[in-house]
Amino acid sequence: MIIVVKKDINEEFIENIKSTLSANGMSFDVLNGERYILIPVAGDLTTSDIGRFKAMPGVDRVVKISTPYVMASKSYRLKTVVDLGDGIKIGEGFTMISGPCSVDSEASLDKIAAFLSGRGIRILRGGTFKMRTSPYSFQGLGEEGVKILHDTAKRYNMRSVSEITDVRHIDLFEKYIDIFQVGARNMTNFALLKELGRCKKPVLLKRSVSASIEDFMLSAEYLMNEGNENVILCERGIQTFDDSTRSTVNIASIPIIKSLTHLPLLLDPSHSVGNFHYIPQVANAAVVLGADGVMVETHYNPAYALSDGFQSLNFNSFERMHENIKKLYEFMRESFTY
Amino acid sequence: MIIVVKKDINEEFIENIKSTLSANGMSFDVLNGERYILIPVAGDLTTSDIGRFKAMPGVDRVVKISTPYVMASKSYRLKTVVDLGDGIKIGEGFTMISGPCSVDSEASLDKIAAFLSGRGIRILRGGTFKMRTSPYSFQGLGEEGVKILHDTAKRYNMRSVSEITDVRHIDLFEKYIDIFQVGARNMTNFALLKELGRCKKPVLLKRSVSASIEDFMLSAEYLMNEGNENVILCERGIQTFDDSTRSTVNIASIPIIKSLTHLPLLLDPSHSVGNFHYIPQVANAAVVLGADGVMVETHYNPAYALSDGFQSLNFNSFERMHENIKKLYEFMRESFTY
Amino acid sequence: MIIVVKKDINEEFIENIKSTLSANGMSFDVLNGERYILIPVAGDLTTSDIGRFKAMPGVDRVVKISTPYVMASKSYRLKTVVDLGDGIKIGEGFTMISGPCSVDSEASLDKIAAFLSGRGIRILRGGTFKMRTSPYSFQGLGEEGVKILHDTAKRYNMRSVSEITDVRHIDLFEKYIDIFQVGARNMTNFALLKELGRCKKPVLLKRSVSASIEDFMLSAEYLMNEGNENVILCERGIQTFDDSTRSTVNIASIPIIKSLTHLPLLLDPSHSVGNFHYIPQVANAAVVLGADGVMVETHYNPAYALSDGFQSLNFNSFERMHENIKKLYEFMRESFTY
Amino acid sequence: MIIVVKKDINEEFIENIKSTLSANGMSFDVLNGERYILIPVAGDLTTSDIGRFKAMPGVDRVVKISTPYVMASKSYRLKTVVDLGDGIKIGEGFTMISGPCSVDSEASLDKIAAFLSGRGIRILRGGTFKMRTSPYSFQGLGEEGVKILHDTAKRYNMRSVSEITDVRHIDLFEKYIDIFQVGARNMTNFALLKELGRCKKPVLLKRSVSASIEDFMLSAEYLMNEGNENVILCERGIQTFDDSTRSTVNIASIPIIKSLTHLPLLLDPSHSVGNFHYIPQVANAAVVLGADGVMVETHYNPAYALSDGFQSLNFNSFERMHENIKKLYEFMRESFTY
Repeated sequence: MIIVVKKDINEEFIENIKSTLSANGMSFDVLNGERYILIPVAGDLTTSDIGRFKAMPGVDRVVKISTPYVMASKSYRLKTVVDLGDGIKIGEGFTMISGPCSVDSEASLDKIAAFLSGRGIRILRGGTFKMRTSPYSFQGLGEEGVKILHDTAKRYNMRSVSEITDVRHIDLFEKYIDIFQVGARNMTNFALLKELGRCKKPVLLKRSVSASIEDFMLSAEYLMNEGNENVILCERGIQTFDDSTRSTVNIASIPIIKSLTHLPLLLDPSHSVGNFHYIPQVANAAVVLGADGVMVETHYNPAYALSDGFQSLNFNSFERMHENIKKLYEFMRESFTY
Repeated sequence: MIIVVKKDINEEFIENIKSTLSANGMSFDVLNGERYILIPVAGDLTTSDIGRFKAMPGVDRVVKISTPYVMASKSYRLKTVVDLGDGIKIGEGFTMISGPCSVDSEASLDKIAAFLSGRGIRILRGGTFKMRTSPYSFQGLGEEGVKILHDTAKRYNMRSVSEITDVRHIDLFEKYIDIFQVGARNMTNFALLKELGRCKKPVLLKRSVSASIEDFMLSAEYLMNEGNENVILCERGIQTFDDSTRSTVNIASIPIIKSLTHLPLLLDPSHSVGNFHYIPQVANAAVVLGADGVMVETHYNPAYALSDGFQSLNFNSFERMHENIKKLYEFMRESFTY
Repeated sequence: MIIVVKKDINEEFIENIKSTLSANGMSFDVLNGERYILIPVAGDLTTSDIGRFKAMPGVDRVVKISTPYVMASKSYRLKTVVDLGDGIKIGEGFTMISGPCSVDSEASLDKIAAFLSGRGIRILRGGTFKMRTSPYSFQGLGEEGVKILHDTAKRYNMRSVSEITDVRHIDLFEKYIDIFQVGARNMTNFALLKELGRCKKPVLLKRSVSASIEDFMLSAEYLMNEGNENVILCERGIQTFDDSTRSTVNIASIPIIKSLTHLPLLLDPSHSVGNFHYIPQVANAAVVLGADGVMVETHYNPAYALSDGFQSLNFNSFERMHENIKKLYEFMRESFTY
Repeated sequence: MIIVVKKDINEEFIENIKSTLSANGMSFDVLNGERYILIPVAGDLTTSDIGRFKAMPGVDRVVKISTPYVMASKSYRLKTVVDLGDGIKIGEGFTMISGPCSVDSEASLDKIAAFLSGRGIRILRGGTFKMRTSPYSFQGLGEEGVKILHDTAKRYNMRSVSEITDVRHIDLFEKYIDIFQVGARNMTNFALLKELGRCKKPVLLKRSVSASIEDFMLSAEYLMNEGNENVILCERGIQTFDDSTRSTVNIASIPIIKSLTHLPLLLDPSHSVGNFHYIPQVANAAVVLGADGVMVETHYNPAYALSDGFQSLNFNSFERMHENIKKLYEFMRESFTY
């Protein structure tokens, strides 16, 4: 960090800053500029350190230089591939995860899994304990849903992913589910992150709608710092004044995040765009922007799904989108020069 | 809700919508306009219902009419006063909650509590299990901090409030802490909300930086729906492009929220403004805007606090602010005509 | 629009609303719901009408149904192609506009135009009267720059586009420039829009960083309403809290805007992303998202350009990007099925 | 500014940066840190300078230190009072500006001016050339409105303020209007700002909904830099996802802006809040937050006003608000200690 103080402040304030830095064993320099004195301080410092120095009398500003995450950054590793066994990998090739918003019933999920599996999809998603803004909305089938998801995935030799919302469900999920999903609204539930960081199964971490990219990386760091390095990132947009979509995915965020981290990065067009009309084109964009895959909601009859039908593709649309994505990915791999 | 369909769509689509509404026992009407057909549907509907109808072929838009929260609204009750015993109430008069950002040590907290108590402050705040964006920042004293907070508050006949971040800490907090605080980053941790909704002690619920006012009300509804009606709301701003403050408190949000709900509403100038220079004026604004109180961070030496010193007032500033607020509140009560 | 009034209001208020509607010749209906009375009103209404009814006693809310723009919408026309002569068209195929941020000098622009023209680019951009946030930044060469741009474009048989910032420059631009560009910061300079609406030359209208899609369409409507139907839209993102890019382009905004309007739509990756590293990938995304083209800044030596070097591509990067885009566009046209 | 380069880059890149700085006569230093080399550069630099250095190979980041505005800052002057003659001043005491959104007719404006003048209001506002998002909304009475406003203000010995939207209206406004108002949507119409900077009459400059505080200051700098130092700032909020108000005024922005500039600062509760219910409380907040005044819309019958009735106070509400504000301002002056 660099501590910036105005030229005309009391000499005593400068001495105070210097002695505090020394007392904390921090290595620093003092540079006299025309209107400011700059005090660059070496080493990685947390936001709290920065907050303390900002509070010291005479300090005009404190400028952060180094990024506060380490294990999630490219200097820690260049590439992470999450291996789910049987040739199913995330971070290599282009992965497609699909399934219904919520697990409605055994019969309904079976129908969807049969379709997806027939198209070569290997990872099945489905909400079981739902995060709903309103307590009066359908809250998911809970434990029953978890078991249905597990059985159905197994039947079709697929891997399962479902959102975990409570530390007390970890045992249940460890038993039945292959990938823990942390939803956007729990990206800052650090108690949950720490606990999942101690698990062995991969975690699919969604970006909170209020998170900067640095915040997103720091939540991944929470998981990795506890020992779980199988983290899959999932972009799903931020909260902005633009209400033409549920949230706003920055068109550049995929290449930017990929340049900062070795972790695989997916895009969730369903929850961000929230309107089935535009999902296929946005999924194509994910391919050319360098995402490692997409997670999209599919239902045989979206208008009758128990939640969020408007953001689910029906089988026909899914099929068309999937064909296009496969061709596009192949084309990119073969023809592009960078 | 009102289902809006374009005039020129297939007649069959209209029939389909009508039969779906009938099948779900919903009462509706069909109105032919110039360019649109409007189908107003009676009753309270959840976001999921709305999502399903939006997905039906032919539907152009679905417009929500009624608000989805009930118990948190003014139609449920006109005014809630949270009674903490010994004459300490929130929702009557103007309440001031204060204390350090984090509980650092017994000695340090005692010094702060002695000062606050001497000034007539009856509710002591202090972080124990801290929510930190980075895993490398100070995470709080945990259980030890909870006990220090409890003992210190008791010594000065104060009530205690601390943020709870994990459902597994509920027993600990129930034993030692008087008010459960739910932080902005946990406002959508619905698993935690449901569990706290089953507790008897009051909950101080902070607004998430990505929450609309309706989202905020719905989180309060989660608590009330489970049986806990002692909910205290706390505004602390939203995430915007304006980085002159940590988050942006809408100058009108206090009167707007107060017009919608019977629950007491506090303002937290420390975490929203994040700069001690402006906290006293913003606290004054809270008084004239009709807030039921403020929660501000105080430390005898902010630059040496273990977290967020920049947003804490020192004792002198606190004293001046407190004097002004008392005079201002008195003045408003006596002289204002509405 | 639909006027929503609460069930329990004074009967007199309802009568008052009804008589006001009648007095204004508006056709309406009155529908009694459980908790609300709905008064749908036929016809297209402006925001001012809506504002007036919201102010009437007893009114709870006014819901807008129809979109307030007509000529810019798909119901007016299905597709607009802007023809610039000599086979140069916008709205057919994928158009690439390029050039420096600012016109620096005759020699410098010539070098860039020679390169671009050699690569088949037919439209040359260059800032002449610059819109700079600070009065101390380089303000452009002004009239001299306009003439240099004109002469250079002519020499290479290209068309020219430059931002117009002042109604008093219209004559100058009409004489020398082929496409008037309206910058994001002037999208709501309605005096300028009206004047350009009376010109014959095409207008390239950029989206303001605070504009909703509807606001953007309404600014196009200002131009068309005065008679100029040669409007080219250009998306360049909105202001959000995400500062990883200069502004945030919603990944879905291209397909959404294209579904609403017949006007050609370009993307400006340079000003939105603001970092040359990510521009080529974002330009590729524009292709698959269905944009009609991109406008990118190019300079032979970006670090020495007089403005915004960081967002300009050098010749090598431009060449690589251009090759990729051509291949990608060709691939999409031939292989995609919708 | 400070140029930040990563430790491991090519030595040649560092030499290149150094020689570029030297060639531009910039004074700098080179500091070797653990992971970064910092190159602090002395002097005030524009955003374009910063952009150029960011584009140089090897540069990781460029950090801005000094603020880019000078004349608008407190180092230029401590306090500006705009004197409108006859004891009417802005920047001394608490100023109230009021009037209708639009000038509807001579009779209507007279009624409003008579009321306001009777209550001691000395500055009359009224829209004449309206900035409307839609070309189909009422566009104002234009020149006729300007004259009506002038005559009415004169009749009641008031000063007039009206929004100017076109450089070609400057002569007209100079003749008839006392204060040029620049609307939020024209805050970045730099051509207009430069021209008004050459006028003698004061300019009331509104903050754009997409402007940072620095952008706002820079627009004031445009005016002052051309010679007009009679600038009155007016906060009216920014664009955020919170749609409970028309725009979001940061509760802390008044004290923050006041700490940065000597210029008087008003708040416009009408256009920011956009709902007459909350305007009086927000106006009270402006008093305690240290604003130099408020500008509020008043109409004898808001529901029949030609524009934006919902955000106008009727006479009764205005009177109550005005009485409260006067008492509150008096109380603050007499009783507050800082």
